[in-house]
Amino acid sequence: MSVSEEERVARATISLVAEPGDLRVLGLTRQFGPAGFLEVLRDHADLRDTFTAAAGRLATVQPERVLASAASRGIRFVVPGDAEWPRQLDDLDAAGALQERGGVPAGLWVRGPQRLDELADAVAVVGSRSSTTYGDEVAGDLAAVVGAAGRPVVSGGAFGVDYAAHRGAVAAGASTVAVLACGVDRAYPAAHRAMLEHLAEHHLVVSEAPPGASPFRIRFLARNRLIAALSRGTVVVEAALRSGALNTANWAERLNRVVMGTPGPLTSVASEGVHQLIRRGGAALVTGGADVLELVGSAGEQLVTDARAPEQPRDRLSVRARQVVDAVPVAAPAPSESVALVAGLGVVEVDRILSGLEADGLVELLPTGWRLTERGRR
Amino acid sequence: MSVSEEERVARATISLVAEPGDLRVLGLTRQFGPAGFLEVLRDHADLRDTFTAAAGRLATVQPERVLASAASRGIRFVVPGDAEWPRQLDDLDAAGALQERGGVPAGLWVRGPQRLDELADAVAVVGSRSSTTYGDEVAGDLAAVVGAAGRPVVSGGAFGVDYAAHRGAVAAGASTVAVLACGVDRAYPAAHRAMLEHLAEHHLVVSEAPPGASPFRIRFLARNRLIAALSRGTVVVEAALRSGALNTANWAERLNRVVMGTPGPLTSVASEGVHQLIRRGGAALVTGGADVLELVGSAGEQLVTDARAPEQPRDRLSVRARQVVDAVPVAAPAPSESVALVAGLGVVEVDRILSGLEADGLVELLPTGWRLTERGRR
Repeated sequence: MSVSEEERVARATISLVAEPGDLRVLGLTRQFGPAGFLEVLRDHADLRDTFTAAAGRLATVQPERVLASAASRGIRFVVPGDAEWPRQLDDLDAAGALQERGGVPAGLWVRGPQRLDELADAVAVVGSRSSTTYGDEVAGDLAAVVGAAGRPVVSGGAFGVDYAAHRGAVAAGASTVAVLACGVDRAYPAAHRAMLEHLAEHHLVVSEAPPGASPFRIRFLARNRLIAALSRGTVVVEAALRSGALNTANWAERLNRVVMGTPGPLTSVASEGVHQLIRRGGAALVTGGADVLELVGSAGEQLVTDARAPEQPRDRLSVRARQVVDAVPVAAPAPSESVALVAGLGVVEVDRILSGLEADGLVELLPTGWRLTERGRR
Repeated sequence: MSVSEEERVARATISLVAEPGDLRVLGLTRQFGPAGFLEVLRDHADLRDTFTAAAGRLATVQPERVLASAASRGIRFVVPGDAEWPRQLDDLDAAGALQERGGVPAGLWVRGPQRLDELADAVAVVGSRSSTTYGDEVAGDLAAVVGAAGRPVVSGGAFGVDYAAHRGAVAAGASTVAVLACGVDRAYPAAHRAMLEHLAEHHLVVSEAPPGASPFRIRFLARNRLIAALSRGTVVVEAALRSGALNTANWAERLNRVVMGTPGPLTSVASEGVHQLIRRGGAALVTGGADVLELVGSAGEQLVTDARAPEQPRDRLSVRARQVVDAVPVAAPAPSESVALVAGLGVVEVDRILSGLEADGLVELLPTGWRLTERGRR
């Protein structure tokens, strides 16, 4: 372990005094190191004025106690330099801010047996909290396919699409991670307590906010950047025009991750945001987990074969026989002479072929001539 | 009129002896002129062998009688060089073949008061014959918007999406054109006789096949290229994986027309072909007529403003007030000191702002502190 205890405590201190995703704090932490930033915050009057809230909290927080208490409850604090640190998060350093949030977190509070550094191949599945039954089905199926292919499914633990994605991964026996806006010891929404406990016991629950932290609105925006940054790609399943899931998609785009969206009925408000995202080129249209695996995989690693329609009787015909079938009317019957003219073949040959086609049930002979059967029309 | 009577009769002859979209016939017609091609067909033994059907018919057809009989029934034969000739069809000359069909037609048989040369801005709306109620609704609405904007709606007169598109345009008082695989005097499907008669009386019905021609399967493939070539862009509304509408889309792509598709539920087989088309980059996703107008319009001619979600109470707040709202918990209430810390503002100022927000109904004060209201969470 290359991280000193002093640095870990300094990072915990920053996590306790500053808001998640405060780009100015995290930028200065990156610049001066965590201990250096705290020193300046303590001693530099101008900086104290800029960071009133953080400077004010500085005297009251007890980082060693919080770390010890967290550890006793199975919560670890993973920081840059730890073997478990997910290095894809370092991309946030150059990614700027969205809605005033950004930066590499000072550290992550983590519950669960999985390792953060095993998320490099993860796929995020996010979407509307007020999803439709259709959206839940799409999210669950997609997460199950992605998870079963060995890619952890990252989401936000919320109602709707998030819940369906976690559940789909769990049902497929796959790995799944909830990144929360509140502390990892909190259950928000309360109705998801059992699921979050299950994830903490068998998978991973992660937050930038310290244990006990409440789910403030601004923390959801900070959280969204982590979901995008942790994952190789983000799929938006349903999102109205103002959905927070679009904020996650914007982060994924900014981080050069793969951004994907699943379409839905144009008549569904819950799909409007996704359609807009696809329309403006911000996301690729995916129709399920197989498409996702193709797009997030290395070139050639996953190859989706375009879905093919079932083979039809016509597919098995010789070129000549197809020429004849194509020349047989679908409605009013025609004599074989007419069929021969249209097909550009001799009448004798056409008569022979028509008899074969009749035996196969593709054409039928009526008093006024030949006509395609229902089967022949397919 | 710059086209000689001799040339028109020669072109009618070709229309009567050759199948629509026979690329070899149409290519030679282009090369030698219509009279030149017929002369070679009459006198050149090798060519007679290649074009058995056409050469065989040559002796029996009576082009002058067909033209006169057609004219007496209100059917005109429009050929290249006529003022009414839709010159966008000449793009077919260089577009090659798909499924053995291609080429600039020898002429078009036309019924109806509109002019073919007024279709340069037209939009084709095509799709599954076995469309869903959803698809019919999308096609009808889209055609109505496109038509009301002054762009003729081109389709194939078939069941399903075609019918919904024609009907949508008619309902909007807009121009619409049916391009048929059979003669313009035939009603196929028979159930659409009334609609086709309406189009022939008030709009346009067009075919490459001569009057009386039956709707052979191969003629649908030839017809599809005309729908694509006549229009500035083609929208596929619903298409299963093997739908003929995808053939039209392929033609539109090959002709450098704008190709568009409307998404649907992933659970709907009727949308699979459209999703595949969008996914492989063969079509742009459109969510309605406004998107279509933007894509087919000249640059800047039609500008779609991205649909915006209705304005929310938060949108009207000052920067400071938003900072405070963002710091108020959504679940367990927090005292104003906590809100001030999270917001990074002084407690006095935060208390003042919270009172204002309470008056606006965005936050509420409970015994244990402040919390967002339902309205404030939006």
